[in-house]
Amino acid sequence: MSETAFRLEHDLLGDREVPAYAYYGVHTLRAVENFPISGQTLATCPDLIRALASIKQAAALANRELGLLDDKRTAAIVAACEEIRAGALHDQFVVDLVQGGAGTSTNMNANEVIANRALELLGHRRGDYGRLHPNEHVNMGQSTNDVYPTSLKIAAWFGIGRLIETMGVLRRAFEAKAEEFADIIKMGRTQLQDAVPMTLGQEFGTYGLMLAEDEARLAEAAGLIREINMGATAIGTGITAHPLYAGIVCRRLAEITGIDLITAPNLVEATQDCGAFVQLSGVLKRVAVKLSKTCNDLRLLSSGPRAGLNEINLPARQAGSSIMPGKVNPVIPEVVNQVAFEVIGNDVTISFAAEAGQLQLNAFEPIIAYSLFRSVEHLRAACLTLEKNCITGITANRERLRASVEQSIGIVTALNPYIGYRHATEVAMEAHATGRGVYELVLEKGLMPRERLDAVLRPENLTRPQPLEMKLEP
Amino acid sequence: MSETAFRLEHDLLGDREVPAYAYYGVHTLRAVENFPISGQTLATCPDLIRALASIKQAAALANRELGLLDDKRTAAIVAACEEIRAGALHDQFVVDLVQGGAGTSTNMNANEVIANRALELLGHRRGDYGRLHPNEHVNMGQSTNDVYPTSLKIAAWFGIGRLIETMGVLRRAFEAKAEEFADIIKMGRTQLQDAVPMTLGQEFGTYGLMLAEDEARLAEAAGLIREINMGATAIGTGITAHPLYAGIVCRRLAEITGIDLITAPNLVEATQDCGAFVQLSGVLKRVAVKLSKTCNDLRLLSSGPRAGLNEINLPARQAGSSIMPGKVNPVIPEVVNQVAFEVIGNDVTISFAAEAGQLQLNAFEPIIAYSLFRSVEHLRAACLTLEKNCITGITANRERLRASVEQSIGIVTALNPYIGYRHATEVAMEAHATGRGVYELVLEKGLMPRERLDAVLRPENLTRPQPLEMKLEP
Amino acid sequence: MSETAFRLEHDLLGDREVPAYAYYGVHTLRAVENFPISGQTLATCPDLIRALASIKQAAALANRELGLLDDKRTAAIVAACEEIRAGALHDQFVVDLVQGGAGTSTNMNANEVIANRALELLGHRRGDYGRLHPNEHVNMGQSTNDVYPTSLKIAAWFGIGRLIETMGVLRRAFEAKAEEFADIIKMGRTQLQDAVPMTLGQEFGTYGLMLAEDEARLAEAAGLIREINMGATAIGTGITAHPLYAGIVCRRLAEITGIDLITAPNLVEATQDCGAFVQLSGVLKRVAVKLSKTCNDLRLLSSGPRAGLNEINLPARQAGSSIMPGKVNPVIPEVVNQVAFEVIGNDVTISFAAEAGQLQLNAFEPIIAYSLFRSVEHLRAACLTLEKNCITGITANRERLRASVEQSIGIVTALNPYIGYRHATEVAMEAHATGRGVYELVLEKGLMPRERLDAVLRPENLTRPQPLEMKLEP
Amino acid sequence: MSETAFRLEHDLLGDREVPAYAYYGVHTLRAVENFPISGQTLATCPDLIRALASIKQAAALANRELGLLDDKRTAAIVAACEEIRAGALHDQFVVDLVQGGAGTSTNMNANEVIANRALELLGHRRGDYGRLHPNEHVNMGQSTNDVYPTSLKIAAWFGIGRLIETMGVLRRAFEAKAEEFADIIKMGRTQLQDAVPMTLGQEFGTYGLMLAEDEARLAEAAGLIREINMGATAIGTGITAHPLYAGIVCRRLAEITGIDLITAPNLVEATQDCGAFVQLSGVLKRVAVKLSKTCNDLRLLSSGPRAGLNEINLPARQAGSSIMPGKVNPVIPEVVNQVAFEVIGNDVTISFAAEAGQLQLNAFEPIIAYSLFRSVEHLRAACLTLEKNCITGITANRERLRASVEQSIGIVTALNPYIGYRHATEVAMEAHATGRGVYELVLEKGLMPRERLDAVLRPENLTRPQPLEMKLEP
Repeated sequence: MSETAFRLEHDLLGDREVPAYAYYGVHTLRAVENFPISGQTLATCPDLIRALASIKQAAALANRELGLLDDKRTAAIVAACEEIRAGALHDQFVVDLVQGGAGTSTNMNANEVIANRALELLGHRRGDYGRLHPNEHVNMGQSTNDVYPTSLKIAAWFGIGRLIETMGVLRRAFEAKAEEFADIIKMGRTQLQDAVPMTLGQEFGTYGLMLAEDEARLAEAAGLIREINMGATAIGTGITAHPLYAGIVCRRLAEITGIDLITAPNLVEATQDCGAFVQLSGVLKRVAVKLSKTCNDLRLLSSGPRAGLNEINLPARQAGSSIMPGKVNPVIPEVVNQVAFEVIGNDVTISFAAEAGQLQLNAFEPIIAYSLFRSVEHLRAACLTLEKNCITGITANRERLRASVEQSIGIVTALNPYIGYRHATEVAMEAHATGRGVYELVLEKGLMPRERLDAVLRPENLTRPQPLEMKLEP
Repeated sequence: MSETAFRLEHDLLGDREVPAYAYYGVHTLRAVENFPISGQTLATCPDLIRALASIKQAAALANRELGLLDDKRTAAIVAACEEIRAGALHDQFVVDLVQGGAGTSTNMNANEVIANRALELLGHRRGDYGRLHPNEHVNMGQSTNDVYPTSLKIAAWFGIGRLIETMGVLRRAFEAKAEEFADIIKMGRTQLQDAVPMTLGQEFGTYGLMLAEDEARLAEAAGLIREINMGATAIGTGITAHPLYAGIVCRRLAEITGIDLITAPNLVEATQDCGAFVQLSGVLKRVAVKLSKTCNDLRLLSSGPRAGLNEINLPARQAGSSIMPGKVNPVIPEVVNQVAFEVIGNDVTISFAAEAGQLQLNAFEPIIAYSLFRSVEHLRAACLTLEKNCITGITANRERLRASVEQSIGIVTALNPYIGYRHATEVAMEAHATGRGVYELVLEKGLMPRERLDAVLRPENLTRPQPLEMKLEP
Repeated sequence: MSETAFRLEHDLLGDREVPAYAYYGVHTLRAVENFPISGQTLATCPDLIRALASIKQAAALANRELGLLDDKRTAAIVAACEEIRAGALHDQFVVDLVQGGAGTSTNMNANEVIANRALELLGHRRGDYGRLHPNEHVNMGQSTNDVYPTSLKIAAWFGIGRLIETMGVLRRAFEAKAEEFADIIKMGRTQLQDAVPMTLGQEFGTYGLMLAEDEARLAEAAGLIREINMGATAIGTGITAHPLYAGIVCRRLAEITGIDLITAPNLVEATQDCGAFVQLSGVLKRVAVKLSKTCNDLRLLSSGPRAGLNEINLPARQAGSSIMPGKVNPVIPEVVNQVAFEVIGNDVTISFAAEAGQLQLNAFEPIIAYSLFRSVEHLRAACLTLEKNCITGITANRERLRASVEQSIGIVTALNPYIGYRHATEVAMEAHATGRGVYELVLEKGLMPRERLDAVLRPENLTRPQPLEMKLEP
Repeated sequence: MSETAFRLEHDLLGDREVPAYAYYGVHTLRAVENFPISGQTLATCPDLIRALASIKQAAALANRELGLLDDKRTAAIVAACEEIRAGALHDQFVVDLVQGGAGTSTNMNANEVIANRALELLGHRRGDYGRLHPNEHVNMGQSTNDVYPTSLKIAAWFGIGRLIETMGVLRRAFEAKAEEFADIIKMGRTQLQDAVPMTLGQEFGTYGLMLAEDEARLAEAAGLIREINMGATAIGTGITAHPLYAGIVCRRLAEITGIDLITAPNLVEATQDCGAFVQLSGVLKRVAVKLSKTCNDLRLLSSGPRAGLNEINLPARQAGSSIMPGKVNPVIPEVVNQVAFEVIGNDVTISFAAEAGQLQLNAFEPIIAYSLFRSVEHLRAACLTLEKNCITGITANRERLRASVEQSIGIVTALNPYIGYRHATEVAMEAHATGRGVYELVLEKGLMPRERLDAVLRPENLTRPQPLEMKLEP
């Protein structure tokens, strides 16, 4: 390497050699050394990098509009941001996502890369900050404390949008199965004990409906992160920001991102509050809890094949055992369960980090972001594999399901209005003790006439409310 | 006691002596023996008992309307329910809140007490279930699986209503302090390091605003529990329920409770889904996290008196130490912190219980209810004592606060737009190293004219955005 | 009431009327007003009250031994403490367990009750603190900051001792069932899919062994809380304590409690560290997690009766449904699951509280104690009801279990060493597709001679390792 | 590419093309498609890959010793394992760490890579499984259900060993500071309020001691994972394993790894129990909680520089703000806090996964491993950066600390034994109200002679227990 393999940069800690090829600068370099934690750099989160570039672009435009930034520098900054948004230079975002400093290193990594690319576009060499400075020009009117949370919100918005979309795909797979299984009668169960009949379609329809509700809740929670922090600067008082700046930058950022952004009504509050992230994570946990419950059910219903419930068949995806030949396991629901457990744990991490905020700032947003993004991405991956590699291939063991209703004791519940809870209990207990059927016992005891009994126990009558023709007791 | 000290009751397990004085019956008795867990009976939760009585009353009215229950029994059941709603017989609700059986024992405790009181009102003796039966008449058209979750939702609704009201009281106390402290200038801090000036009013206003947002979020989440389960019966298919029953009972229950209730759109889904409780708990956790953060701040700002920040004074509420004379501690914020920690833990319990639901029912709603009710009640108690015993009595150390701004280095931030980040950094570092003031150093270095400097550093200009009159660099 | 219904007490906040009948004093009174949180007073935790009395007694004896407290006062304090340890005056411990002030109000409640009872024993009236003072004499050489954590440790020690004992009772019930079921063959399952045979005795033996391991781990963790804080006073430096005091008080306290106590090696560290509580709670969580898993299994194995696994029968404890006649539910395992969920949530609360400690003290030990004690007591109650109302009455469906092995595909695993994984896979797949048996298919395909096959598949050979007589492949 | 770019492999799902260059096979390929979740492959965890290779090597040796595997195949398998343990072929471990199937895909990825490398070493082509088969030879006598947990334990053992070592490095840095600061007197604080004096050395010594204790607890918990599962095969009954196999493979594995491994006493229990992982994670959480508390303290003690405690100075590691010139933040403690929050969240994930085990197996160990390994690695990284980039560079503001003691009110505590709690309280309150000093007030009121007062308040006497020469009151 030639002697130009490094350039010298300077900050309050002194001089420092930066690799000549690097678009990042001295701050980024120090941050890389300070935070060798997770190995997951900003570059692993393209949404975040695009969000940062969008913000810097919007800020430059706003500053120009206010007459604070000249046209040339503005144009260069905007061009650099456009390139990054299009996917360029992501490899220059080298700081670990898990970092101290409340996101300063993330913001400075962006400032430095953009400044150096803009310098290059202007025909200057990297590091020539006298001409265009990461802090004075790229970061003009900004602070990490407004840029960083805003970037997290925008990145989360896009991630959640994709998650909701994927949940929709999964939901439709459940809905299709609900339709396919609409006429398959089976025993419903409460507390794992035989209860009363239902259709397999009703069962699968429920899984779809749960997702539909979760999609709606998630969309609501995402609405909370449309409130951005730009204009707050250091602590929300807007020091160094022009009074008109917050409004302009928000409008520009909305245009660039296509999100209906608004400025948080009170920027001091917005600077220190992580409530929206806590709530968002809480709703992701809700999604996880219910998805996990659904997968528990799928594993239970497909248990067997001979010593289990064996009601449905999950598609075989891989040999299930290195020792047990022919064994096929519910590997896809299992991995979804595990993602759910991770999301629930992430929610605790986020609660801790949010609670740890002090005075005018929460310095622990990086771990909130790291956890939240992981929850969103892994949930999405889980929904995708669940839909593609499991739900769409599920088949039902129709005969077995019908038989389970016919030989059940639980159908006696349907007779309550006709023979009373006490008589019904006696029939149930005798059926259980002797192994005999409810139908024959009711007839034998003369508790109901056969035609009425047949009508009441007709499968299609058991799975929805029925008009009762009961004569009132005296 | 005479030989009539017991009456004999019968269920599927056989005969059993029940104390003659008891309004509850054999099911309740067995449940008390089965679940000696927390020692907290249903009676410790009057909201829940009233909710149960409201449901039973609404169901009786609906059944009469459908011609399924005669007038005499209806009237007796309604009268018994009215008495209970007015506060009577709560001591007869003796089952532990923490119970197995998915709430069956709660529902049966209510059925038995109401049946026996109704029998009494009809002139019969307790236990004479041939005339009016806990299951056949009081529980007509119902199942634990629709009654229990509905009762939890109604009870939670009232508890959350009171909590929101109390949060409002606390919020107004913060708002009053924000007004009182509106002109007190102080240093804002980020990452516990001196940042830039703000007013103490802005600081307290933020605490109020956080509560306002949380009140709104909590109200939204409460909206989710207006969807009730009545009409679902065992698993949501409505077996044994008349097709018109769900609609009628919902209307009656809305009238009785004054809550704008609706029937869940899909009762199979509603029977097994605990999503609304998970979300509600998630929002309570949000409230807890932010309240805890606020209390952390209060303890920090009042630290000292001599070796701490000593910016504000919390009212002395009790001698702080058994050994250190004259010590006064922030005991009220400390207890609020602890309630917050409990609420966060309860949220994990609720997540576990919700995830554990299987197939058509979640059998673990009792611990959800136990945890949720505790979160709501303890948060309310915490808000009450915080308002009454702490916030309203806070005073500020005005002189010390002003001095901290005057001698701060952080005000150099305001000069960024005039002298640039690099010069400002040099001034800051020299001030830090020498102990000198920013003002004198800027003048000494001729970085700004005195009048401009005075204007920029005027306290009232430091705490909000200011128009910049910057000439563009060439 | 006469005019003497109140007495006047004084503290740094001024004068205050205390009910004349009360043994507690002004500090306690103020604490009751400050902390109306959980409604659970110290009196609900007799272990803690006895621990406090033991400490005060030991301290008085140590102070006398050092010549700092005279014989008369010592004797009166000791007598008062003895009475309280024997169960007297517990109703005077009226402060909420959930309190601010790092336990000061707990310590002062004890100091005041003991002082007033001692005054009474000396023939003086309550409140005559000039003669015997709660702080100067009862609290001599102490601080809340050493008394409170020490009292929590002693109270926890006794609670955990009882829990371990109860776990032993439950374990022996599982062990008895393991013996009873030792010869019942059944299919083992992995991932809810049929795997290979085992005995029901092996299954129940495992539940017993898990408890045995947990008993051992819990005993180890309890060992960590034998390190007490006495002698630390305010922050661990031992200010106001005689150099010999720590050693003497520890010896006396060990004698009184019968616990092998030691003084923490570094009292400054011990004053601020909650690590032992975190670890103890972590082990309680371990117990909870495994107990919950066991109960999940019991509920699964007893699912049915007709549409479930139906391998074992839990004893019927109560009618299972208000609507479904004859239904019996696994109510006891269900309540144990719920206690487990609570314990896991409590662990998060304790983690939060422990992390929140600042500088020389953790002010949040009250919520740690509240959560820890609940975990211990509820786990114990859960073990008790599980043993008595469930495990001892379990029966097995022997025929069904044997049949499940005979018709299983999983037994093909035992043939791996003889016919190879590939052939075994083919047999398994054909059995699954055709519904035929492994035995007949292996014979039909001539993969093994009948005698060898019979020997390998003999049930008793399938549930433990067997010598292989394999000839090596060329 | 030529026509040989793929080879055909076969499993129970049919034929499948595998890239010709791949050492992994059809099972791995399907797993990659099934589990595109976290993007973190097995290759990111070299400890785990080495553990798997060690196990396979030990098993091959044991099988040869039992006469079940011939010399040639044994030698080839051993050689392949040795290469992998030396670092080769890690890039062939391509399955996601987060996977369904209870680790089967991890085990099969190892089986396939080893088989294909062994085939190559024997001069055969990859995929020629008729000669050496992943299941029949590499996996001989094993099951995923014993291999996978054993591999996790060995991998965790090494990770925890490194963590303990790093904690020792950090501890020694604290100990060095404790020595350096041994004579610096300062005010101790409880509940953030001024308490009594101590030395800064005592404060830092405590941080060191906490680590020492945690190192010991972690070593104990690690002891629990020396119990391995080899010999259990599918469900712990040892089906297909030779009775002597478990003992032999354990000895060989101990030799290879250098760990003092033992066979779990009951392999059925060991196969389904995750208690050791839960406990290990609980202890890691303990480490995290205390490390976080230490970092909270460091941030608090270094707060300022002018409006904070400003007692110590953390070394400046990077410019602290993109907007506030000269600001330096406690970025290193902040990142450690965040790692701690992550570890606490991971513990909840692990609890969930452990509780979800069913019957003879826990299928959720992959997420346990993923979470546990992250906790271990991130904690280690956090300790490293804390030691290197923070602790070793801390300096103290000696004058400010001494002054805080001299002007403190809290020193009045030391006078308790001489002037009594009531007089001391009066002095404290007057000092607080007037701003005057304790020393002058005590003299002015004639409460103590000057020489005695001087002796008692001598700084070195305030930080440890002192003999009291008190005359007993009459």
